[in-house]
This record gives sequence, C-alpha cells and structure tokens, in this order.
Amino acid sequence: MMSGTREILKAAKAAAPVLAAASPEQKHRALLAIADRLLSEQDAILSANREDMEQYQDTLGAVMSDRLLLTPERIAGMSAGIRDAAALPDPVGRVLRRTERPNGLVVEKVAVPLGVIAIIYESRPNVTSDAAALALKAGSAVILRGGKEAFRSNAAIARAIRLGLSDAGLPPELAGFVEDTSRESAKELMEAEGLIDLLIPRGGAGLIRACMERAKVPCIQTGTGICHIYADAAANQDMALDIVENAKTSRPSVCNAAEVLLVHRAIAAEFLPKLQRRLTADREGRGLPPVELRLDGRAAALIPGTAAGERDFDTEFLDYILAVAVVDSVEDAIRHIAAHSTGHSEAIVTEDADAAERFTRAVDSAAVYVNASTRFTDGGEFGLGCEMGISTQKLHARGPMGLEELTSYRYIVHGHGQIR
Amino acid sequence: MMSGTREILKAAKAAAPVLAAASPEQKHRALLAIADRLLSEQDAILSANREDMEQYQDTLGAVMSDRLLLTPERIAGMSAGIRDAAALPDPVGRVLRRTERPNGLVVEKVAVPLGVIAIIYESRPNVTSDAAALALKAGSAVILRGGKEAFRSNAAIARAIRLGLSDAGLPPELAGFVEDTSRESAKELMEAEGLIDLLIPRGGAGLIRACMERAKVPCIQTGTGICHIYADAAANQDMALDIVENAKTSRPSVCNAAEVLLVHRAIAAEFLPKLQRRLTADREGRGLPPVELRLDGRAAALIPGTAAGERDFDTEFLDYILAVAVVDSVEDAIRHIAAHSTGHSEAIVTEDADAAERFTRAVDSAAVYVNASTRFTDGGEFGLGCEMGISTQKLHARGPMGLEELTSYRYIVHGHGQIR
Repeated sequence: MMSGTREILKAAKAAAPVLAAASPEQKHRALLAIADRLLSEQDAILSANREDMEQYQDTLGAVMSDRLLLTPERIAGMSAGIRDAAALPDPVGRVLRRTERPNGLVVEKVAVPLGVIAIIYESRPNVTSDAAALALKAGSAVILRGGKEAFRSNAAIARAIRLGLSDAGLPPELAGFVEDTSRESAKELMEAEGLIDLLIPRGGAGLIRACMERAKVPCIQTGTGICHIYADAAANQDMALDIVENAKTSRPSVCNAAEVLLVHRAIAAEFLPKLQRRLTADREGRGLPPVELRLDGRAAALIPGTAAGERDFDTEFLDYILAVAVVDSVEDAIRHIAAHSTGHSEAIVTEDADAAERFTRAVDSAAVYVNASTRFTDGGEFGLGCEMGISTQKLHARGPMGLEELTSYRYIVHGHGQIR
Repeated sequence: MMSGTREILKAAKAAAPVLAAASPEQKHRALLAIADRLLSEQDAILSANREDMEQYQDTLGAVMSDRLLLTPERIAGMSAGIRDAAALPDPVGRVLRRTERPNGLVVEKVAVPLGVIAIIYESRPNVTSDAAALALKAGSAVILRGGKEAFRSNAAIARAIRLGLSDAGLPPELAGFVEDTSRESAKELMEAEGLIDLLIPRGGAGLIRACMERAKVPCIQTGTGICHIYADAAANQDMALDIVENAKTSRPSVCNAAEVLLVHRAIAAEFLPKLQRRLTADREGRGLPPVELRLDGRAAALIPGTAAGERDFDTEFLDYILAVAVVDSVEDAIRHIAAHSTGHSEAIVTEDADAAERFTRAVDSAAVYVNASTRFTDGGEFGLGCEMGISTQKLHARGPMGLEELTSYRYIVHGHGQIR
C-alpha cells in the first residue's frame, strides 16, 4: 500500500507536536523499543536485504555491494547504535540563555525541536536507523528517502522503527518512509515548503548540489571534502608522513580523507622523496595499496609521479590518489586552500606556534587542525556523541552535526503585564 | 562611476579576510571613525536626502516620506547608534566549547565571522548605517542594496562609511554599495553563490518571499508577523486590555504588532464589550485613532464591528485593524495559532500557570509571551544590545538577530601527531 510523499509529510507534520511534547523519558523508551524491534524484525530485514542484494550486487561492484549488505552482526550494530543515541543527553528544553530585564521581563532562550527533518540518502541501509534515531532523539519527526538499491532493506528497517514507535505509544507517522526512490520524490521533498523544517542530503556531490540549487525548504550542505594537509617549513617530518598517510589512506572513500598535500619549499627536496617512498614502495612492502601522486611542476621536479592536470587540485578523489604542490609560505598555503577547498577540514603540520596560529586564524573551514589527521572530523571524535553528517556551510551548523545542531530554539518570555 | 554588482561582491570577498583578522580594538576604532564621518559628512548626506525627498515625497505619502527624511538630529542618532554598536562585546573569537579528548586532541569551537553579509532593504536610509555597523562589528564585509527612493541618501551614507573604514586603515571595499536599485540587482545578489555568506532581506513580504524562493545563497527569512494574543479564561482582564491595546496600537506598522486576538468563550461576553469600548470610543476620547475590529461569527454576536472576511485571520494588517475570534480552550487557541501564525510572536494572558505552561510548550513561534505585549520582540528589549532583524525561520537564528547570530563558528583542533 503506497502512500504519496505529500501525505507522508503531512502525517509527519501532524504527529510532530506529540513528539515535541514528549518527556525525555518517553523519547528514551521509544528509542529502546526501536532498538529491540530491529532485533526482533531481523529475519524480515535480512530477507528484504537478500532481495536487494540479488537484484543489485552485480551492477554495484564490490565496495558498494558491501555497503548494501546486512548481516546479523550489522543489524546488532545498528540496534546498539540506537541504544547509544538513546543514552545521549536530551537536547530539547535546555535553557541556552536567561536574562531578567530591567522592566522585570524574564527572557529565556530554550532549545526546541525543529519539527520535521527529512533525509535523502543513497545506498547504505544503516543510515535509515541511524538518522531516524538522531532525529527522533532531537524531538523531530523524520522523513526517510533512501536510494533504490536498498529500497527493500530500508523499507523493512523503517517498518521496525514504526513498530518500535507504536510499542512506546507514539504515532508511527513520526517516521515517514518515502516509498518512491525516483528523482521526482527527491524534488518533491526539496520543494515541500511548510512541511519540512530541515532537509539533509547525504550522498554524492550531484545530490548535494541539486539540493542547494533547488531546495525551497531549509537545507544543510554536507559532506564534500577536498581536505588539505600543509607540511610547513618547521614540520616534524616523521609526524607529517604519519599524518599524510593516515589522512589519505585510512579510509579513502570518506569526506574527511585528505586529497591534497601542500609542502613548504624549504623542506620539499628532503620531504617529498620520503613521502614518495612512504606512500608507494613502503606501502606495497606492507601489502597495502600504493597512493598515486599527482604532482605540480615544482613537486614533479623532485620526485616521480603523474603530472597533475588542471582539475586535480579541485577533485575529491575518494581514492588512493593525492595531489601534491610545493608552496612558498604559510600564506601561500592559506591562499591555495582558500581557492580550492570545499570548507571541510584542513591541517597544518608544524612545530612553529606562530605559523600554526596564522594558519588556524586564516583558514576558513569547518575544522582546522594543528598536527593531527583530518580524519578526526567526526561527531564521535569531537565528543558530540553522534552525528547526522558534516556540514560544510556556515549557517546554523558547521562541521559534525550532533543532537544540538538538530534543534532550534525559541524565546519564552514571562511578564506580569508589561507593555511597551 | 558605477561599478557592477559582481565586481563589488568580489572586492568585498577579497577584503573580508582583512577584517576577519582585525583585532577587536581595530574594529572598535573603525566603527568610531565611521560614526565621526557620518557627522562630518552631514551636509553631503542632507543634500543627497533633499534630492531624494524632492523626487519622491509626493508619490510616497506622509508615512513613507517621513521614513525617508533625514535631519541633523536623525544623522546624530545614526552616528550614536554606530557608537552603541562599537561598544558591544566583540562576538568574534569566543570559545563556544572546549573539550580535551581521551587521545589528547584539544577541540575548540570558536566563533568566527561569516565573511560577506548582504542586506536588501527598502526605504529607510538609516538601515544603511545600522546594518553596516552590525555586520562590520561581527567581522564581516557588508553589501548594501537599498531601495530607489533613498538611493542618493544611501549612497552618501555609504560613502561616509567607506571614508571611515579608510580613516581606520581598513579597505573601503568592506562596505560595498550596490549602485543599482532594479529588481535585477536583487536577483543578482540572491544568485551570487560563493560570494555571499548570508543574505538578509529587510522589507515587505514580496521581497522576503522572492528571497526564499529564488536565493541560491544562504538567506534568513525575516519579519512578517501575524502576531496573536490569546486572552485565556483565567486572564486578568484589565491586563489583557492593556496588552492588547499596546500590542495593536503602540506602533501598528512594525512586525511585532498584534494582528489577531483570540478570546476564551468563558470570558468573551464580559471581555469583548470592554475591549470594544477600549479600542474605539475610549481611544477617540483620548484623541487617538480607533481600532477597526474584524469579528468572527461568535465575536460578532457579542459586539459591533466588521464581519471578518476569509483572509482576515491570515493578514498582516500593519494598521489600526484587529481580527478577533472566540475560541473554546487553550488547545483551540494553540491550534488556531498553528494554522495561521507566521511564527513571529504570540502571547497568552492568564493567571493560570498550567494554561501558560501548555501555551508556551506548544506554540512554536520565535517568541512566546506570558502576560506581556508582543511588542517586546526586539534585540534591545531582549538584552542583545542591537538587532539586524527578526528571524521567523528555525535554522541558525530565530527571533531578534544580534551580533552572535551574525557569526559562524569553526572547530580548531590542536594535536601532537594524532592519527586515526
């Protein structure tokens, strides 16, 4: 029984006030009920996932198929993830500021739910439960619109979520599942003015760009990361090698992986040959995939590698590829980053506190590191407990979006007849 | 010498990092220099204003002409306003959160400037200096695009601002003035992706709607206020009369003025006749303009007035007109507000703490009042020191936007070689 996207949105909006009025304990119980349902509905979820896998694994390729695959262990992980979210402090109702005015008015700024949060995502079915748990914990109804490859898996997980909500005495409409994976349904969400309070696209650059250009509902830009590491003249070179290798290779497919290395000319002749060995022969010796280096002219004069093309300093490779350029100074590195970065994460490796200070002051990205890997840009690693994605925009939320970033606020003002 | 809008934006973006790196003292000095220049350029500003007035006062009508008019006193007021903004705490550089992680990473969330803030506004020339002062104090370059009636006045004020910036050793491009008041230039700003970090429309509903629908740059919805007052069964009726009269008539043309009164049926027969006297005969006796009442069927059965038409509960009158309806309960009032409010400001008048609690919990507007006038929704009245407008959206900023709401943040992370 398919429901239209608009009906699902209206039902979620109508149900949202019930959740907004729910106590922290009720929300906590509801998340635990959902976590239980994921386990008790495991057979149905696995069977739905087998059908998705049968239809799509040949066309998806190994990496994407692995993302689509569910196992009892992965479902147990999803269930545990919901319990983790349940255990986080409730973000709703916090008094963010309180002032008593000279006229006696008491002005409180209080965290409140956003209302309806919609997520458009691509292949991984675990996003269905992760995203729903965070949105519901933040007191908002959630609209889930996943990709076609995971449709049956997502539908089965969404059903478990809705059963869990019912178990806890909450309306199942709080978790709306869009039963249409066409571009049309994504567009419908982008244009659902008055029915969606926040739209979060999680996926490729094309999806995110479409949201930014078309959305008439409030939307947060996530994810694309052309992350830079700058090895300064005063870098500890061993540290720089460790950080570059980690940021590039520990998980090349994620948005906080590094794509570009900038090296100060004062150390380039010494550092680049070490880098080249570390990322190629050395990795192969360890049985690991080597990194292809795409070199600007000055780097190419020092080490072997591919000549960088025009687009190589503006590409999110998401692969074992690193663009490398030599720069003249911290300021030159800052300028390069300003011209090419997507505003996600950048790092400087240096023992010079002044250089570090100039870099962190001037680089305008969501996360700026001194002597650490860009891979730490993550809600858990930043101590937020969880995350709904990494915002690369400057309004509302920047960097990892945790529960607080999934709420709004309002002013509640108590008086005794004050007029102006 | 006209410059194209795009060139002005590019110059502002290029200059923005200079201001972002400026010390609080430098910004403070720059604002004082601007305040001085407004006074020293007073003759040029008054002369430009006379030309605007000559061209437009006949077509504008008395109220709008008065908004356009500048006098030495008003310029002194604008100059003093800039000094007030200068004296506010600098919002940039505040450490909003700091955590040391188990791995030794120190994660700081630090307030940073947005970059370039653009304001599209209509007739009042004082917005030119008010908006510029706040944006600059918040560390951002500002783009000013006013209405055609005030073009010469705005240009003269912008020139004084740019002279002040130069006096303080800052690039005058930090205050860009768009020398084109056509719709085309507003559209150009809405679509200037990558050049504007925040666009704030200040003006009529048409302008705000156009921004919401077309803007490809981040935009904050301001202003439209269909504000409600609910007189509960347990209202102190004298207090309710004072609050309704104040909220409706103290300044009917502003967004925090009340447009709709909801009255609990239990007090309607007693309260509405008192209200009718207070807002009509009584006001006329005091030499004040009476309020036209537009009544739903139940109110019309109790007092004389105009029968409310279909749109009267969805109209921002901005005039001496009040729509009045009788409701059955707090919940009925909450439902009416959810269906008709623009999310600006609403008030309950009641001596019943439980009714007040239900109302403030359920009404999802930027400001919700108990026993006070909606007219207090204002940056100064809320203790923010100033404001750039009232946001009626839920992301980033809600209610009065002060200096903090005009900043973003980024994470600055210090390590000693951590990898993940």
